[in-house]
Amino acid sequence: MPKPSRLNPQRLFSSCPIQRDIATGLYLAVKDLPIISPHGHTDPRWFADNDAFENPTALLLQPDHYLLRMLYSQGIDLATLGIHASTGAPVETDPEKVWQLFADHYGLFRGTPTRLWMDHVMAEVFNIDQRLDGDSAADIYRHIDAQLKTAEFRPRALFERFNIEVIATTESPLDPLAAHQKLRDDPWPGRIITTFRPDPVVDPEYENFSANIEQLASLSGENCDSYKGYLRALRERRSFFKSLGATASDHGHPCAHTADLPESTCEQLYQRALAGTITATEAEQFRGQLLTEMALMSLDDGLVMQLHPGVYRNHNPSLFEHYGRDKGADIPLPGEFVRHLKPLLDRVGNRSDFTLILFTLDETTYSRELAPLAGHYPAVKLGPPWWFHDSPEGMLRYRQQITETAGFYNTVGFNDDTRAFLSIPARHDVARRMDARFLAQLVAEHRLELDEAEVLIQDLSYHLAKQAYRLQES
Amino acid sequence: MPKPSRLNPQRLFSSCPIQRDIATGLYLAVKDLPIISPHGHTDPRWFADNDAFENPTALLLQPDHYLLRMLYSQGIDLATLGIHASTGAPVETDPEKVWQLFADHYGLFRGTPTRLWMDHVMAEVFNIDQRLDGDSAADIYRHIDAQLKTAEFRPRALFERFNIEVIATTESPLDPLAAHQKLRDDPWPGRIITTFRPDPVVDPEYENFSANIEQLASLSGENCDSYKGYLRALRERRSFFKSLGATASDHGHPCAHTADLPESTCEQLYQRALAGTITATEAEQFRGQLLTEMALMSLDDGLVMQLHPGVYRNHNPSLFEHYGRDKGADIPLPGEFVRHLKPLLDRVGNRSDFTLILFTLDETTYSRELAPLAGHYPAVKLGPPWWFHDSPEGMLRYRQQITETAGFYNTVGFNDDTRAFLSIPARHDVARRMDARFLAQLVAEHRLELDEAEVLIQDLSYHLAKQAYRLQES
Amino acid sequence: MPKPSRLNPQRLFSSCPIQRDIATGLYLAVKDLPIISPHGHTDPRWFADNDAFENPTALLLQPDHYLLRMLYSQGIDLATLGIHASTGAPVETDPEKVWQLFADHYGLFRGTPTRLWMDHVMAEVFNIDQRLDGDSAADIYRHIDAQLKTAEFRPRALFERFNIEVIATTESPLDPLAAHQKLRDDPWPGRIITTFRPDPVVDPEYENFSANIEQLASLSGENCDSYKGYLRALRERRSFFKSLGATASDHGHPCAHTADLPESTCEQLYQRALAGTITATEAEQFRGQLLTEMALMSLDDGLVMQLHPGVYRNHNPSLFEHYGRDKGADIPLPGEFVRHLKPLLDRVGNRSDFTLILFTLDETTYSRELAPLAGHYPAVKLGPPWWFHDSPEGMLRYRQQITETAGFYNTVGFNDDTRAFLSIPARHDVARRMDARFLAQLVAEHRLELDEAEVLIQDLSYHLAKQAYRLQES
Repeated sequence: MPKPSRLNPQRLFSSCPIQRDIATGLYLAVKDLPIISPHGHTDPRWFADNDAFENPTALLLQPDHYLLRMLYSQGIDLATLGIHASTGAPVETDPEKVWQLFADHYGLFRGTPTRLWMDHVMAEVFNIDQRLDGDSAADIYRHIDAQLKTAEFRPRALFERFNIEVIATTESPLDPLAAHQKLRDDPWPGRIITTFRPDPVVDPEYENFSANIEQLASLSGENCDSYKGYLRALRERRSFFKSLGATASDHGHPCAHTADLPESTCEQLYQRALAGTITATEAEQFRGQLLTEMALMSLDDGLVMQLHPGVYRNHNPSLFEHYGRDKGADIPLPGEFVRHLKPLLDRVGNRSDFTLILFTLDETTYSRELAPLAGHYPAVKLGPPWWFHDSPEGMLRYRQQITETAGFYNTVGFNDDTRAFLSIPARHDVARRMDARFLAQLVAEHRLELDEAEVLIQDLSYHLAKQAYRLQES
Repeated sequence: MPKPSRLNPQRLFSSCPIQRDIATGLYLAVKDLPIISPHGHTDPRWFADNDAFENPTALLLQPDHYLLRMLYSQGIDLATLGIHASTGAPVETDPEKVWQLFADHYGLFRGTPTRLWMDHVMAEVFNIDQRLDGDSAADIYRHIDAQLKTAEFRPRALFERFNIEVIATTESPLDPLAAHQKLRDDPWPGRIITTFRPDPVVDPEYENFSANIEQLASLSGENCDSYKGYLRALRERRSFFKSLGATASDHGHPCAHTADLPESTCEQLYQRALAGTITATEAEQFRGQLLTEMALMSLDDGLVMQLHPGVYRNHNPSLFEHYGRDKGADIPLPGEFVRHLKPLLDRVGNRSDFTLILFTLDETTYSRELAPLAGHYPAVKLGPPWWFHDSPEGMLRYRQQITETAGFYNTVGFNDDTRAFLSIPARHDVARRMDARFLAQLVAEHRLELDEAEVLIQDLSYHLAKQAYRLQES
Repeated sequence: MPKPSRLNPQRLFSSCPIQRDIATGLYLAVKDLPIISPHGHTDPRWFADNDAFENPTALLLQPDHYLLRMLYSQGIDLATLGIHASTGAPVETDPEKVWQLFADHYGLFRGTPTRLWMDHVMAEVFNIDQRLDGDSAADIYRHIDAQLKTAEFRPRALFERFNIEVIATTESPLDPLAAHQKLRDDPWPGRIITTFRPDPVVDPEYENFSANIEQLASLSGENCDSYKGYLRALRERRSFFKSLGATASDHGHPCAHTADLPESTCEQLYQRALAGTITATEAEQFRGQLLTEMALMSLDDGLVMQLHPGVYRNHNPSLFEHYGRDKGADIPLPGEFVRHLKPLLDRVGNRSDFTLILFTLDETTYSRELAPLAGHYPAVKLGPPWWFHDSPEGMLRYRQQITETAGFYNTVGFNDDTRAFLSIPARHDVARRMDARFLAQLVAEHRLELDEAEVLIQDLSYHLAKQAYRLQES
């Protein structure tokens, strides 16, 4: 007999009745607010082309590194999950068999946010009332697959059903933004904007850096032989991105190092980067200098700047060689912001018209570095708990460790940061519930008045993200 | 209509009824105990001269870096808050307008300890029953201002009303301690003592170090040309401070580095420090050596030693240039104690007649380094959660991460560490409530007996501070 | 009048009634499961010889570094606790007087796990219904002492009464394992197994390293003049340990550094280690290489590998000189796993047939490094909260910071890690209670279904340890 599944309306709230009741009230007031999704990785072609999604496995399982990493950690080969290896080794090609394997191991996700998101997707998006397990797998697969073939489950229909007011995708400066141009010229009113993510052209250690610069020169129409021309080209691409809706840039550096070097040094580093003779230390200097350059450009074009530092990418060389990036083998590193950000902050930290949104995977920096920096510098704001910390306990730790020093108004609401489009409502729902829970505790313990919590839950769920990412004007 | 404000008698306790009731009982037993304030930054002239405070803004807002930093972080210029810049730029001079600006932005402090302290001051010290906001600002300002002009709100009257048994201020060895001498000769019985804070004469990187040493020589009557004479001068000033009540020294070093160097090396470093030719590394060695020297002097004169390491002072150079120190731009750094303290502990760590009280802004050191050190060395005790962590969540984390390894009796009760005199009762009240809450949880979960919690709450609120700082004898 | 003492049946559960009731149900289902103790430090001779324990003080107090450290931190000389110094200084020889001193200071342990364990031992093992304090000390001493003289309190009887299914001790490769051989040849069915702990022969900085290697050569019958012969000798000893039940190796390195060096480099380092000319950096390389060698041997012989890094051993040189190791003067250090483990993981991290169980004393690595590594690499599993963190709050932090990224199934259940044999049931009881509490919270907050929690509590209390340590086959 299949196990029933039902999302409890009070899930994630404290089970203490006083707090639970306050949290319920706060949550219900924001439950149906539109979703602001200012940072994420959905594919703009979905919305531009509006084709049906392929099948449950290709949509919900195979692109999700959270799922792949956990299954892999328990000895499940990626090939049996239908992930293609560069070696051309045999791979499971039946999506239903892959789904069955996933369902057989669904218990591994107990206690993880993946489980919360997936249960939400099944219950709320697909109206499934069975729990996923080995027995229910086939039924659930067919049920989802049938729905994906209908008009109601095309990307635009889901976008509207999810009540998304605006969603930002993330693209390289080398991307021609064809889908975004198509969307701009389409009468469909959904607001899909791009984000300027220049890692491939500002990191000398990125694959094919000098070829990327050639392409940058070609796309921008600027001569990139000199550092000055290179900066002009970047400025031009930012402008192009802005014309397709971008309100922000995003930067995925190994660490938060910034620099403010003399122009002659910049020119030298740039030439070495082009020539491929730059050392690791110089490459870090160059990336740090480019963060400062990007900040200075932001003063002119108004793009909000996001920094996502501190990941050891592709920690598993054998997996990387066979299966490539984003298969769950990225591991966080210790973070440092106080010394690293100083050169940039010395230049623009006191500017109220510039915004630098910081993210971290090192939770020790919350109370020690990030909250003190955001609680002082006009330019600094804190992004929501990121990646491994985009979870109920992660959100609680974030609020508990940030709020007393930085308050609520130096934070920027929630980011879903996902390519898993169907989980976006689930992720925002978790964030709204956890914020309601945190505020309810403050109210129940007489650390905050209820009417203030009612204002705050609106701000945290909707207004702060819109303001911080400058999304008010369409 | 103004919003009513009332301090809930059960604020900060868990909302779980079982825990709340136990916490209430524990708290009520210590609510009215005298305040022991063994570490702080009030101005001794307040008590020596007993003049009326100037106005609400000058008293409650402008000297408070917690307030300034948060307002500044949201783009409010310090000049509009009436803070004078060295440039002589125009500044708001009407304290009531500054108060209004503060009140308009009082919502920024939601969820912060500043909010708790300020609400307490308004309700308990000034008997105000309105919530501070833009509408109530003017009324509240005038109400406070009128009271400040009365005899009941002079420093000594407040000291008595606050039931302060003893308060320590903090002074440089170069301070003649005129106010403390005046107080000694005054029949008023309030116990105001000094603390020996030698940073200006033990840190070669302090502004005007060599001039400071000249002044030290002059004040002490010792020839400071040699390291030996310099140590004699320090010893003499410690003795002078002790004669004006000091029971402790305090040290604000960039890190917890200590050293135990041969005398010839000390002499060399000292000469370079005087000559201004000392390197950064040598300066760290010198400061570290002086911590050990201070510890050795403590063996003789009995002063308790406090170490407050780990802050990047004046992180914002532009703000520092315009507005100077203590405007909210100090940012914590990662802490290290295990290797740094070893030279000092090798000398005096096993002495039960010496006390080293450690503070940190890096909470990761609580469970990893500080609790294990305090739970072993007879000389080591842990100061309360400091600065950014002097807050409800900060206090919970401290007890949760310290207690299981160091117990309660290797901690030293609460320090308010403040120049905000009127907030002292509020701060001690938060500490007593949070300790009651923590103990109540242990009792409710049968991890501690109620009669033991009743002993502990007395110790944590009163006795431990008195013992650790050797304040028993008047 | 003596204070009554009673272990509350719901101790350590949340006092929130909803959670408490769920936790009670979960706990009762595993309360009486057999104990799996796969990592510890009991003396195998106890079980081989089955002699009576000496007296309460020698059994319960003097070997326990948790007790010694706290008492010492409050100025109690180890000599007054009957601990013999190498100097031959006078020492208290009356165990009853030592017990009285301990009881007089029992209040120091309030809020610590030591208190929970000791109360459990007194109540459950010795059926004492008084609280230990200065008044009850003598009575309790005599009561325990009398029981220790009876057959029911011999080691084997207690082993059976404690319902221990299997217990692992820890021995050096230089240990002839006489007690384990005696146990093998004894008809008593208790399962006592050894663990291979090669620190003395793989750490060039260990006391008498080259003499240890000579002994290794002699015991193994292998010529250890070359690195290859040395590896053969280690392999031979592993095989011998395995023949006496070992299913695991254990490694107590200063940090988690691993290496994968060319054979010629290994040979050079080995020769320098033997000659005593190896530098500190080279010694770290050598230790790191040996971890990789051990992992490679595990692929063949199936021993599970445990790594316990990150302690500054014997931080107090004066105490070490007088009283030796394990007196409470070991202090944790910051941990690093992401870069340190990479050489080893590059070799064997993707192997599902190899298990590396990681421990840490630096809790910052839980969410930043350990959970991401365990949540990806098939070979990596996480050991339970260790040493200073083997405590209620430590266990909560562990589950809260690990579970959302690594789940439950990349953890390995509980280790008691103790030489305090009588406290083993207490320690496992705390772990089972805290896991029940954690799961109860997830259920009460609708983050997990009750039937799933019922499976998990069985796994966490019993099955995971048995599987991870390969203890299924006897």
